[in-house]
Amino acid sequence: MILRQLFDHESSTFTYLVADEATNRAALIDPVAAQVDRDLKLISELGLTLVMVLDTHVHADHVTGAGELRSRTGAKTAASALGAPCVDVKLNAGDVIAIGGLELKVLATPGHTDDSLSFLLEGHVFTGDALLVRGTGRTDFQNGDARTLFDSITRVLFGLPAETVVLPGHDYKGFSSTTIAEEQAHNPRIAGKSAEEFVSLMQSLALAPPKKLDTAVPANRACGQALPTV
Amino acid sequence: MILRQLFDHESSTFTYLVADEATNRAALIDPVAAQVDRDLKLISELGLTLVMVLDTHVHADHVTGAGELRSRTGAKTAASALGAPCVDVKLNAGDVIAIGGLELKVLATPGHTDDSLSFLLEGHVFTGDALLVRGTGRTDFQNGDARTLFDSITRVLFGLPAETVVLPGHDYKGFSSTTIAEEQAHNPRIAGKSAEEFVSLMQSLALAPPKKLDTAVPANRACGQALPTV
Repeated sequence: MILRQLFDHESSTFTYLVADEATNRAALIDPVAAQVDRDLKLISELGLTLVMVLDTHVHADHVTGAGELRSRTGAKTAASALGAPCVDVKLNAGDVIAIGGLELKVLATPGHTDDSLSFLLEGHVFTGDALLVRGTGRTDFQNGDARTLFDSITRVLFGLPAETVVLPGHDYKGFSSTTIAEEQAHNPRIAGKSAEEFVSLMQSLALAPPKKLDTAVPANRACGQALPTV
Repeated sequence: MILRQLFDHESSTFTYLVADEATNRAALIDPVAAQVDRDLKLISELGLTLVMVLDTHVHADHVTGAGELRSRTGAKTAASALGAPCVDVKLNAGDVIAIGGLELKVLATPGHTDDSLSFLLEGHVFTGDALLVRGTGRTDFQNGDARTLFDSITRVLFGLPAETVVLPGHDYKGFSSTTIAEEQAHNPRIAGKSAEEFVSLMQSLALAPPKKLDTAVPANRACGQALPTV
């Protein structure tokens, strides 16, 4: 498997390129609109064919590159059935997506948003904004819910094998990956905490709204491209 | 092998944590002084013992964490015999450093600076500022020399197996890794270029000096810590 972690400095977003070396078929997870040229150039240089663009959820802090990638390459877009109505493939928990010979399994991990998914692929889990390295996504908008996020992390993600590599949707401190075992032991919001303690902690954060909330969410429900005028 | 890529946003520097899982002995490559607390916390959480701190060269754009890591952990510091006189282990091309059961091989890759080394470890090469993803280090200070860098990249690094994973010392565009084969084919400064074309290109860059050149170089020759007053 080819796996590349890419970063957008403006929004601190990780995008992942994954590909099956046997067939050269590739997918992008959580692409950023401003980085589409970079990402397509890399895909071309590696001799890959982009067949699928997956978003872990409707983002509030950057605009997805999904729609532009679809229009420029013919790749299908995919996200939760609860999220962006624009996508070609509406994903549900338990779905398995083929990327050439690779099998990507869809996990429902709501709580940061109600449509948040994680993707399990060959011992790696792409957790979007549910589980970050030594952190979690926030839960105070887009139908976020701290109790739900606690359950997603502790029941769904922490149910994966301990050595599973966690690849998050964002990082702000210079980390690039972690493992399930590490977060079980050392995530300061979750390790040793009850659901009630986590809910109380998340309620106490009093974060400012994301700068792009009002524009990014409607844009992303349209796969990052303008909705047709009706 | 445990391998973690860490990033310092201020200087766009990658630090690498590598460790032998059988013995839990670890090394840091190119640590940044401002991130020493983060790095030591991670090492502690992973249950590792830091035994060696390696610098690929005397940096001009950030201050190394080597000296502070040595004083806080007892780890040995290592770098080129041509570079920082402060280090415990003066490295030469061909040296093999044991990190528990891992063997790290030292390659001389001068040109960005005269003391630049690369480190080969289990199919990965840590190239410092010699070879970057789709780029190279600059060659206009610290005894840098474009012709020498061309030879280091094309003869030493491109002599490694094509699938070797290249882990650079910096990135500014959101890339995290590449391979020898990719850079042979797609590095815009090197692929298909003669030594003369590369030298001409590097001479034409007219870059501003690194912001920290005057302070970082003497600090790094002292392993990032103040030289004793005499």
